[in-house]
Amino acid sequence: MSAKTPSQSLTTLTDLVLPGETNYLENLFGGEVLARMDRACSIAARRHSRRIVVTASVNHVAFNKAVPVGSVVTIEAKVSRAFKSSMEIYADVWIEDRQSGERTKVNEGIYTFVAVDETGKPVPIPQITPETDLEKERYEGALRRKQLSLILAGKLNPKEATELKALFI
Amino acid sequence: MSAKTPSQSLTTLTDLVLPGETNYLENLFGGEVLARMDRACSIAARRHSRRIVVTASVNHVAFNKAVPVGSVVTIEAKVSRAFKSSMEIYADVWIEDRQSGERTKVNEGIYTFVAVDETGKPVPIPQITPETDLEKERYEGALRRKQLSLILAGKLNPKEATELKALFI
Amino acid sequence: MSAKTPSQSLTTLTDLVLPGETNYLENLFGGEVLARMDRACSIAARRHSRRIVVTASVNHVAFNKAVPVGSVVTIEAKVSRAFKSSMEIYADVWIEDRQSGERTKVNEGIYTFVAVDETGKPVPIPQITPETDLEKERYEGALRRKQLSLILAGKLNPKEATELKALFI
Amino acid sequence: MSAKTPSQSLTTLTDLVLPGETNYLENLFGGEVLARMDRACSIAARRHSRRIVVTASVNHVAFNKAVPVGSVVTIEAKVSRAFKSSMEIYADVWIEDRQSGERTKVNEGIYTFVAVDETGKPVPIPQITPETDLEKERYEGALRRKQLSLILAGKLNPKEATELKALFI
Amino acid sequence: MSAKTPSQSLTTLTDLVLPGETNYLENLFGGEVLARMDRACSIAARRHSRRIVVTASVNHVAFNKAVPVGSVVTIEAKVSRAFKSSMEIYADVWIEDRQSGERTKVNEGIYTFVAVDETGKPVPIPQITPETDLEKERYEGALRRKQLSLILAGKLNPKEATELKALFI
Amino acid sequence: MSAKTPSQSLTTLTDLVLPGETNYLENLFGGEVLARMDRACSIAARRHSRRIVVTASVNHVAFNKAVPVGSVVTIEAKVSRAFKSSMEIYADVWIEDRQSGERTKVNEGIYTFVAVDETGKPVPIPQITPETDLEKERYEGALRRKQLSLILAGKLNPKEATELKALFI
Repeated sequence: MSAKTPSQSLTTLTDLVLPGETNYLENLFGGEVLARMDRACSIAARRHSRRIVVTASVNHVAFNKAVPVGSVVTIEAKVSRAFKSSMEIYADVWIEDRQSGERTKVNEGIYTFVAVDETGKPVPIPQITPETDLEKERYEGALRRKQLSLILAGKLNPKEATELKALFI
Repeated sequence: MSAKTPSQSLTTLTDLVLPGETNYLENLFGGEVLARMDRACSIAARRHSRRIVVTASVNHVAFNKAVPVGSVVTIEAKVSRAFKSSMEIYADVWIEDRQSGERTKVNEGIYTFVAVDETGKPVPIPQITPETDLEKERYEGALRRKQLSLILAGKLNPKEATELKALFI
Repeated sequence: MSAKTPSQSLTTLTDLVLPGETNYLENLFGGEVLARMDRACSIAARRHSRRIVVTASVNHVAFNKAVPVGSVVTIEAKVSRAFKSSMEIYADVWIEDRQSGERTKVNEGIYTFVAVDETGKPVPIPQITPETDLEKERYEGALRRKQLSLILAGKLNPKEATELKALFI
Repeated sequence: MSAKTPSQSLTTLTDLVLPGETNYLENLFGGEVLARMDRACSIAARRHSRRIVVTASVNHVAFNKAVPVGSVVTIEAKVSRAFKSSMEIYADVWIEDRQSGERTKVNEGIYTFVAVDETGKPVPIPQITPETDLEKERYEGALRRKQLSLILAGKLNPKEATELKALFI
Repeated sequence: MSAKTPSQSLTTLTDLVLPGETNYLENLFGGEVLARMDRACSIAARRHSRRIVVTASVNHVAFNKAVPVGSVVTIEAKVSRAFKSSMEIYADVWIEDRQSGERTKVNEGIYTFVAVDETGKPVPIPQITPETDLEKERYEGALRRKQLSLILAGKLNPKEATELKALFI
Repeated sequence: MSAKTPSQSLTTLTDLVLPGETNYLENLFGGEVLARMDRACSIAARRHSRRIVVTASVNHVAFNKAVPVGSVVTIEAKVSRAFKSSMEIYADVWIEDRQSGERTKVNEGIYTFVAVDETGKPVPIPQITPETDLEKERYEGALRRKQLSLILAGKLNPKEATELKALFI
């Protein structure tokens, strides 16, 4: 299995914010953003692995700006790093101004998916070769985030998270 | 503003998994779980603060077990710790066996909400006094998770995250 | 099969009223309330019988107060009485004031479910032992409501509805 | 305000049963039937009164036959009797066999709507002149059902429900 | 297989416009109109052919008037002409004024469906005998529209579209 | 207002086919495809014009291949020609094989949108300069399709449709 680049899994989901998807303040509901990012990330994971994929964890999602009703929202998802069967995927979320066309980043999410066979058993996947500076930075950070995730899930002793530990010392 | 206990914000959302909410393997779709948890957490945050609340971040969600179509899913959300205007909320997700009635935990999510006034400006909220052992453990961990979240968002230098740093040394 | 109490089937469904679920006056749509109550009642019926359950009838639903968009709505469903294979379930619906936290009852529904096996054939279920005063009152009324329902469906001659008849004389 | 006939408010809602609206047994979900009947009845009530209308109560719905996925479902709603500001509406629900075209009645619901002005205050509405035998029978029964509904809501003493009382003696 | 009239396939879908189905200007979303027309046309095609039917093409839909939130929308679909396995269906869309009851036509769509067996293979269907003037006019035009559709799909040379050609000379 | 290229309005909407969006044969429902294409085309029209846009007509949609549940569907929409206030938009719809990654075109739709101001009045928009061969071919055909659409809507006499007429002679 030869390695792939992040751009080979790039998935673009551009869609409107309809009134039925908004909260009390008439902004896109947090839960709807999470669901859209999950769908975009699952497609990116599938494009990278060419396997059935299932959501393993959401590692971090930051909601920086509200997305008002009527907005055009673009989610761009790319695999940032692949491990044995699991992949980290970054989803960047943008809105664009109707009149100027200018894009503003509103939030960013990091998801982990696992590739499985028809019986649900994890299967090996191709590795990632990052190309751009941002892709390299995300690739580097992925191992630290994986350790963090294992610590949060109680499956790793912080003292053994060597990669992560180095950050704090 | 006097402190409140986590159980004062307890929010229970028990509902079915309908066929329209499932993925290719006929399990509840990851994005739908995230959306339901977001709604339950937002209600817990509102009950604690008695304010309008908006999703600030998802800190971690682990999907441990698949939730098959037809399941009864219960989400229990409680505020685990309050800061100045932001709150950490834990959502525990359970399914129950129809014949034995036995409950199994399928996943767990940690969300952060911010209390705001009608103009969207953050407002102060009551603090939390944890009662049970689990509540105390989650209360203790919340500060470390907040530092992690600030690091991931690039708003805090890891070297200054004293609470978190202690974990690794 | 030993009898069970109503509280053993208690099902709580707390959720938001989103803009997509409202009518022209920006209140929760009647049909959406009926659908949520149906889901909560079906779970209560399943928890009592530990069987597959299907909706047999809606006996009465009173809409007393409108539920505005943005409300937190709580449905509490409990089996009020069990017959051979059918159960009566009460669903009480509440909203809560965001600032004071005070709960107001907005409506109440009475549903009947039947427990069936995999082929759709009715199966016997445990009986109910009411505990609180309200549970006892609902238990007492259930037989009269069952007779009413049979009369409305043209399956019982009013003159033979002895339990119900007593009310009017 | 001159009286109207039931057929002047006849509302027909023919639609498919899609997979996303079904339960575990792949039949149309009870709650979805209730929601569709509520929409059809609200239109019939609006056509009769030419006013804004709100759901006041569901008096009875009997689910006699399951509606499998892929069915064509027709709901026919007509005002059966008008009171001062409230109306009783009957919704008959049919499915049809694809190959023979034969129609089978699957259930029947009785709803009450109230006509209101822009401030939500009840307003007077035209009366009903039934034409067919079935319309006359439903018209006759409507007063008894109204008394029943008031008794169930605790707003009428059974001993004072003269119309209804006559049934049992 | 004896011919049928268009009215034998008449399908009426009357429903409300809920807030969750509207666009930024609070009018019924174009895509939602298209989806409702598709469902009504598929039922008309099924009633005519008594077969499984699949959408083959949308030949033309004109959106003449906006449909505001809260409207009562009626779609009336009828088969206008049958070919070997395919049928042309006209869907007329109306709204009605709440106070006067007056109906206004808002748009009109022309769809083509194909009747298939369980394996997806096209099967022969009954022909159409138009009755009213409008039905006759639509029947006449259907062949020209079929030729147009084939030309647009690149499956017919315009010079061979004799029926259509006559229009322009 | 300087002219723009079709690629400046390119809108990509990649998403999954969930079980709740499928028909009886477990393929993506025709109406859902139409709705997704409408949303993608409306965004392309908005990106070209930087104005509020409304659906004017669907000129043609051909459904060539069924889209099974679980597919990844990509819609690519681009403005093919601009007139005074109206634009023609082409939406190409693709699915991709999970294992080979190969893309297959499943259908194609042609929509017309109109750019309006806040009061709904049509406003002038930039023209289109096609670049690729396919864009040029679509640009050429757009005028003929516009004349066809006017004829179908009864707003143009076929004998005056000079551009279209030339095709047949």
